[in-house]
Amino acid sequence: MSSNYRNFRNSVPWLIFFLEAVFILLFCFLYSDDGVSGSNISYPAFQDVSHMVIFGLGFFLAFLKRYKFSSTGFNLLLIVLGVQWSVLMEGLLFFLFQNEKEDDLKSITKATVSMTTVVISSAAVLGKANPIQLIVMTIVEIAAFHLSRWINKMYLKIGDSVGMMHVHLFGAYFGLAVSPFFSEPSPNSEKNASTPESDLLSMLGTLFLWVFWPSFNSVLAVEEEKNTIIYNTYFALAVSAVTAFALSVLTTKDGKLRMKHIHSATLAGGVTVGYAAHSIWYPSIAMILGLLASVITVLGSHHLQRCLNSVLKIHDASGVHFTFGLPGVLGAIAHVILFVVKNWTDLQSQRYLIMTEIGTFCLTISVALISGFITGCILNLKLLKTIPVSKYCEDQFYWEFPHLAVGF
Amino acid sequence: MSSNYRNFRNSVPWLIFFLEAVFILLFCFLYSDDGVSGSNISYPAFQDVSHMVIFGLGFFLAFLKRYKFSSTGFNLLLIVLGVQWSVLMEGLLFFLFQNEKEDDLKSITKATVSMTTVVISSAAVLGKANPIQLIVMTIVEIAAFHLSRWINKMYLKIGDSVGMMHVHLFGAYFGLAVSPFFSEPSPNSEKNASTPESDLLSMLGTLFLWVFWPSFNSVLAVEEEKNTIIYNTYFALAVSAVTAFALSVLTTKDGKLRMKHIHSATLAGGVTVGYAAHSIWYPSIAMILGLLASVITVLGSHHLQRCLNSVLKIHDASGVHFTFGLPGVLGAIAHVILFVVKNWTDLQSQRYLIMTEIGTFCLTISVALISGFITGCILNLKLLKTIPVSKYCEDQFYWEFPHLAVGF
Amino acid sequence: MSSNYRNFRNSVPWLIFFLEAVFILLFCFLYSDDGVSGSNISYPAFQDVSHMVIFGLGFFLAFLKRYKFSSTGFNLLLIVLGVQWSVLMEGLLFFLFQNEKEDDLKSITKATVSMTTVVISSAAVLGKANPIQLIVMTIVEIAAFHLSRWINKMYLKIGDSVGMMHVHLFGAYFGLAVSPFFSEPSPNSEKNASTPESDLLSMLGTLFLWVFWPSFNSVLAVEEEKNTIIYNTYFALAVSAVTAFALSVLTTKDGKLRMKHIHSATLAGGVTVGYAAHSIWYPSIAMILGLLASVITVLGSHHLQRCLNSVLKIHDASGVHFTFGLPGVLGAIAHVILFVVKNWTDLQSQRYLIMTEIGTFCLTISVALISGFITGCILNLKLLKTIPVSKYCEDQFYWEFPHLAVGF
Repeated sequence: MSSNYRNFRNSVPWLIFFLEAVFILLFCFLYSDDGVSGSNISYPAFQDVSHMVIFGLGFFLAFLKRYKFSSTGFNLLLIVLGVQWSVLMEGLLFFLFQNEKEDDLKSITKATVSMTTVVISSAAVLGKANPIQLIVMTIVEIAAFHLSRWINKMYLKIGDSVGMMHVHLFGAYFGLAVSPFFSEPSPNSEKNASTPESDLLSMLGTLFLWVFWPSFNSVLAVEEEKNTIIYNTYFALAVSAVTAFALSVLTTKDGKLRMKHIHSATLAGGVTVGYAAHSIWYPSIAMILGLLASVITVLGSHHLQRCLNSVLKIHDASGVHFTFGLPGVLGAIAHVILFVVKNWTDLQSQRYLIMTEIGTFCLTISVALISGFITGCILNLKLLKTIPVSKYCEDQFYWEFPHLAVGF
Repeated sequence: MSSNYRNFRNSVPWLIFFLEAVFILLFCFLYSDDGVSGSNISYPAFQDVSHMVIFGLGFFLAFLKRYKFSSTGFNLLLIVLGVQWSVLMEGLLFFLFQNEKEDDLKSITKATVSMTTVVISSAAVLGKANPIQLIVMTIVEIAAFHLSRWINKMYLKIGDSVGMMHVHLFGAYFGLAVSPFFSEPSPNSEKNASTPESDLLSMLGTLFLWVFWPSFNSVLAVEEEKNTIIYNTYFALAVSAVTAFALSVLTTKDGKLRMKHIHSATLAGGVTVGYAAHSIWYPSIAMILGLLASVITVLGSHHLQRCLNSVLKIHDASGVHFTFGLPGVLGAIAHVILFVVKNWTDLQSQRYLIMTEIGTFCLTISVALISGFITGCILNLKLLKTIPVSKYCEDQFYWEFPHLAVGF
Repeated sequence: MSSNYRNFRNSVPWLIFFLEAVFILLFCFLYSDDGVSGSNISYPAFQDVSHMVIFGLGFFLAFLKRYKFSSTGFNLLLIVLGVQWSVLMEGLLFFLFQNEKEDDLKSITKATVSMTTVVISSAAVLGKANPIQLIVMTIVEIAAFHLSRWINKMYLKIGDSVGMMHVHLFGAYFGLAVSPFFSEPSPNSEKNASTPESDLLSMLGTLFLWVFWPSFNSVLAVEEEKNTIIYNTYFALAVSAVTAFALSVLTTKDGKLRMKHIHSATLAGGVTVGYAAHSIWYPSIAMILGLLASVITVLGSHHLQRCLNSVLKIHDASGVHFTFGLPGVLGAIAHVILFVVKNWTDLQSQRYLIMTEIGTFCLTISVALISGFITGCILNLKLLKTIPVSKYCEDQFYWEFPHLAVGF
């Protein structure tokens, strides 16, 4: 064990310093203060998204009894590294293809939204991946996500703000493809459990995410669509929160509420309307989508998780498949159906566009699964020091606990 | 007990599904995307109010030792249900009376502000009402509040943004009228107590409310008055927070501070200047009002609570009478006095307006008390499954606790 | 001890009431609603700063095991008192020198930013100063800070938004000058320790500060510079957070992460670019500054703290020297160097300006040290009832704990 510590000590800082040196050098070449000071992103909206990702998701994932420091701490580490990398990727794509250059605030906002994929994927292996693996995963995943977005944009002509909303889908399926490469913790280990206190911390994060979700969905949209997106997202979230309570009572033994259902199902509505929100013309459609999303999440967490787990050996540590994956798929399907209904009279001529819509989300999922599988192989390399199962979900493996002497 | 569980299981989800079905249907008829995208509510201000109500009030009420899940969880449930219902009520009133139609964001904002009444009333019976009762209360109370606002608007010509600020008054007196219908918990039950941890959670919520209160008071005001309202609310809050510390030391044994005083008295100033803020022309007046509000809250919690409790059999679980009720009354009186002082030279001709001012707040309190009393009768029906006193303030009655085995 | 309680009881409320009475009277004379309703400060940005100071700093300092109530509570008390005092000081300076009058929102924003100095200084004596001492310190420090800003503005022609960014420097060195006047707690007292729970609360505050720091640095800047400042601050913060993780692993035994490093070093970048942010023309420069700030903070907390402590008898309770002081000095030096590099070709004629730049930050530190020393002497007066070392860091000395009976 002590050698493992030493290994950890030897690798993490140098990996971080190496990446930072590369980032700073690349920033030197790619960016300068070119006097563009205006931005079509409002600063408060960017702030909301930043808050969601850094604070909301950090505490949302702090539900494991002994992994609260790591949940919030590593979340911060990944995001601050990933945002720099994502801004650079955008800059490189601009440099190579001479796209229209974006202003500063927009590039950080897009990078922050992109980082949601990484946080979702890291949630799928929560407690199992060490920081070196998480950092490598961040680097690969952001590159793969940019690739997927770039293909969508170049060949399928998908707008940037719509393509960005694939983050949930991409993150969830990337994470699911990575997770089988980690051995499964013993199912009756008490370390996988939550305490009332940690569940409350997670509730704190959930409420933050809930409140700021309309900002997340609308931040990259054009000005005219913003209010529609905010309105539809709000109602989808409201209905999925309400439904979560009802379904939780129906599905548990004794008819009690389960905190985990509330955490994941309240947010499902926001994920689902993610990229359809601007095209929903009745709020009641958003409400029905929110209801369906919540149903999928709660039922999924009951029935599908067990099947998947036994058949595909996927151990989805925080239920990202049901919280982000399936609601994302539902949203994509809803988007296509809404498009078909809207153009019902002129369906023949729109066939190509419908195909594109279907193609774009299949493509996102495929790229996510393939790149996730490759990343999983890389993360399993001896070089990256996979941690033993006995050290899963254990803050003490990574953090100093001087307080331990006085009773943790 | 197990039959009680089963009852709970049988009723809550179906009540929720029924309401959601009705809401979605009504939304179908009443709302469509009519292309109105502009709004005179700023989105960040709406976000602040939403954050206050969902997050701030949720954690503000999480001070009971064993009722933290329910405080935050049921708060979310009530608000997401109530906001939909409140938006619908506005839509119905528009439909029936052909008022000027409001934009989407404004209608959610007004609904969120209205929901404060329900949260305040539910705080008066915190730990005593079960979710079915709370949901029924939400439905009735929002309808009664809209009725009260509508009468104020139609017959007394009170502007909407002023009428909205009656939320604290309405919520507090509605809650007080409901509370005698619940039997009182045994006074030395340890479940009514807080722990240092839960007090700190409540402090977290309080600080959120404190910071966002100027947004709450100004969100519905016209643009020109916003800065004045923000300024006055800020100073009223500041002085009431300062005074809370001084009075807490003076009134407790040994001259120590009591966390409960800080929680409620720091906010009293914001409640008091609620609907007078736009008409206060010196910040020092707002400061004096903040000071008086804090005095009322702290002294009230000491002396009045005991009298009321013994005489009227009102058991005010979270002290809403002193936190929201009396400061609201003080604000209403201050509003009238300020009006009189301002029009001193021409008092005769303004007599009608002064009467209106007095009438409007008497009316609000009367409607609140009467509808609260009726609601209390309804909530006591056998159908709604009043919970036994022994199960008051007990998360375990509603929530699964798989962690219990390892020591809650 | 009981006499001590009684003393405390006798003094605090009357001191508070006296101050409030003075404040309200002065407000009466100095302020009125003059119909100026526009403001060049955006309300959401002010809200961010208010949130940072009230909530973020309150919880940032809640890391002591038994001092969480006092950390958050006294922080609120000091800020609400200090903001009023600071607004009055600005008003008095305006009254005396007939400067340009500022709008309401700007004056509260400036006062809130100024209060950061007091919070930083109070952090240096966290757990050691009683409320009376803290209140006196607030009054003196705000006056001294305004004096220092006023000299900088009058004689060195330093712009207001730049002068305001001296808050970190001023606060840190004022606090350090005050701290030797308090006797040192016994080093192996367990009350100075943190628990995992309190460390997490502090992380909560830290993440808030991290997210809102770009608002803090940009709130008083002119519109054209805002985006540059936000961009540079964001990257400086990101790099310093990344570096904090790497350095923490390198410097601790066993190569584990130390939560304290993460708390302070992640923020160091934001402090450093505080007043240079508008003049940084490449983001990579901000990134390098963020890296250096993080290095200084982590190494400082290891090596310098021990020296300072033994040589100068300074016991820096929360490490403000390394979190705010040294990064501030680094920022000041960087500002001068950047200025020299920018005007390299025409250095001769700019010599006066360079001298001014150096002069201004020397002046700030000098005023801070001198006024801090004087304040330290005042705080040591018998009248202010210094608390015994055995009562340091003890919530129970100030707050009621009715829950103690059921096991704190």
